[in-house]
Amino acid sequence: MDALVRLAKDDMAAVDALIIARMQSDVPVIPLLAEHLVSAGGKRLRPLLTVAAARATGQTGDIEGPKKLAASVEFIHTATLLHDDIVDGSEMRRGKVAAHLIWGAASSVLVGDFLFARAFELMVETDSLRALGILATASSVIAEGEVLQLTRAHDLNLDLDTYLQIIRAKTAELFAAAAESGAVGAGATDEQVAALRDYGMGLGIAFQLADDALDYGGATETLGKNAGDDFNEGKATLPLLLAVQRTKGTEDLFWDRVITKGDRKPEDFERARQLIVSSGAVEATLDTATEYADRAKAALQALPAGPWRSALEALADFAVSRAT
Amino acid sequence: MDALVRLAKDDMAAVDALIIARMQSDVPVIPLLAEHLVSAGGKRLRPLLTVAAARATGQTGDIEGPKKLAASVEFIHTATLLHDDIVDGSEMRRGKVAAHLIWGAASSVLVGDFLFARAFELMVETDSLRALGILATASSVIAEGEVLQLTRAHDLNLDLDTYLQIIRAKTAELFAAAAESGAVGAGATDEQVAALRDYGMGLGIAFQLADDALDYGGATETLGKNAGDDFNEGKATLPLLLAVQRTKGTEDLFWDRVITKGDRKPEDFERARQLIVSSGAVEATLDTATEYADRAKAALQALPAGPWRSALEALADFAVSRAT
Repeated sequence: MDALVRLAKDDMAAVDALIIARMQSDVPVIPLLAEHLVSAGGKRLRPLLTVAAARATGQTGDIEGPKKLAASVEFIHTATLLHDDIVDGSEMRRGKVAAHLIWGAASSVLVGDFLFARAFELMVETDSLRALGILATASSVIAEGEVLQLTRAHDLNLDLDTYLQIIRAKTAELFAAAAESGAVGAGATDEQVAALRDYGMGLGIAFQLADDALDYGGATETLGKNAGDDFNEGKATLPLLLAVQRTKGTEDLFWDRVITKGDRKPEDFERARQLIVSSGAVEATLDTATEYADRAKAALQALPAGPWRSALEALADFAVSRAT
Repeated sequence: MDALVRLAKDDMAAVDALIIARMQSDVPVIPLLAEHLVSAGGKRLRPLLTVAAARATGQTGDIEGPKKLAASVEFIHTATLLHDDIVDGSEMRRGKVAAHLIWGAASSVLVGDFLFARAFELMVETDSLRALGILATASSVIAEGEVLQLTRAHDLNLDLDTYLQIIRAKTAELFAAAAESGAVGAGATDEQVAALRDYGMGLGIAFQLADDALDYGGATETLGKNAGDDFNEGKATLPLLLAVQRTKGTEDLFWDRVITKGDRKPEDFERARQLIVSSGAVEATLDTATEYADRAKAALQALPAGPWRSALEALADFAVSRAT
């Protein structure tokens, strides 16, 4: 990921400035709350994708449009984080206390709405109805994915197709739309636009699957700072669903208690983690992640060779390798 | 209002069909929850404004664009209702139990997001970036108004200018944008577009002020079904703010207890209502509402005379008369 960050340094500085400028409001709590999340940083991975997609098409000149789309993508992402944290009752976000615990759920709902609306105001300025349509559709697909997850979150019988449908919608769709809209904003050919959408989709799925694996320590079993979050929310992610299938007949009561009934004791996470790792479920999850990362890299062949394409290839590898 | 409803019957049937078609989703809880609100009806006043604005410019042919914008306006409105009911902890909406009490706050947040995104997808289909920009800006202004109200809701020292700023943003801006975008979608002249925006703004302010008065029985003192809601949420609306000013030195402790401290007993509403009516605060609120309704009617002079213009004039009168 470093190569990409280095390449995009100047473009992303401009995107950051746009983000700060456009989240301002005369209503004091709005920039305060928005800045709480935005200044905590995060990886800015999605707007980075928009900028990188624009550049990877061969565009070396001005990319005013893609920069505005990149800031819009970050606003949409931040809005969904604010709303998700309410939905999940999350206490932490980007290493800070979640906004709804500081300013209240009501402010978080409304500031999310504000950022979402600002995203569309920014998109209008790019004069690209096509890019706007891409991000509008992504936004409704994300909401659908979140609702689907909400209604099926604790379902141990979730089939793997439905699980993939959920992460495709709630995570990968924004990666895909971020890359696709960047290409559209840069005036790319239809072939390049389609390639960058496919890249973003594969990358997003790989990222989410690796995240799901990291929640149980990934392949290294060195627990990261967020390990156990999914388990503690009783979320049926791929590693868990695979482990449930693979321990059928022996561990059904355990899974039923901790996920379906939500009756978890502190020591349950360690037992779940051991079952998930020893059943090979983490490995299988990362294998699937690698498949999607490979698809993402293959899609890039439609783009001109060069440092941007190489950096995007490396990003797809990084998506999975950070969990191995 | 009846004249307008009659005139717009066919156009609004098409808008209703669009609303139903575009709130569908494969995720079952989404159409269920959306339909709970949409089928409860309400007045469909905002989309009606969009359609009426398009027709009032003299457009007698096809108004495909304005109809899509009208459905978008209703989606934006429904999304804000879903989120507001969470913010306010409201138990009822349009005579039904509020959605968040049936499906949970999480689903209400996410379905609101879905409808908001769908609104923008529909707008993209109209090919009018200008109309889209109008409704995007309205959406961010509405969110700002809601946050401002949230932070100042129980502030007895709220000055009247700030109060007007709040209702302008949270209510009247969508009326203005609904009418303005309808005119834009109908290909109206800039003068007509500006006139219809002014009309919507005046109408929206008049409507909200009349609503505020109705919460204390209006001029007739015949209590409507929502009477007392604002008081029970401790909201500092214009009738209350005026009554606080006019009873300064005698009722300060009462207002401080019931609004600032939020310590309300069942009998407090009747006492508040009597103070508000006897101090002339309801009358003064309705006088202000009449001023804005008159401004709205005056703006219509830029449009061709005819049944649509007359019906919009009558609507401005109705906005206030229903509370007198």
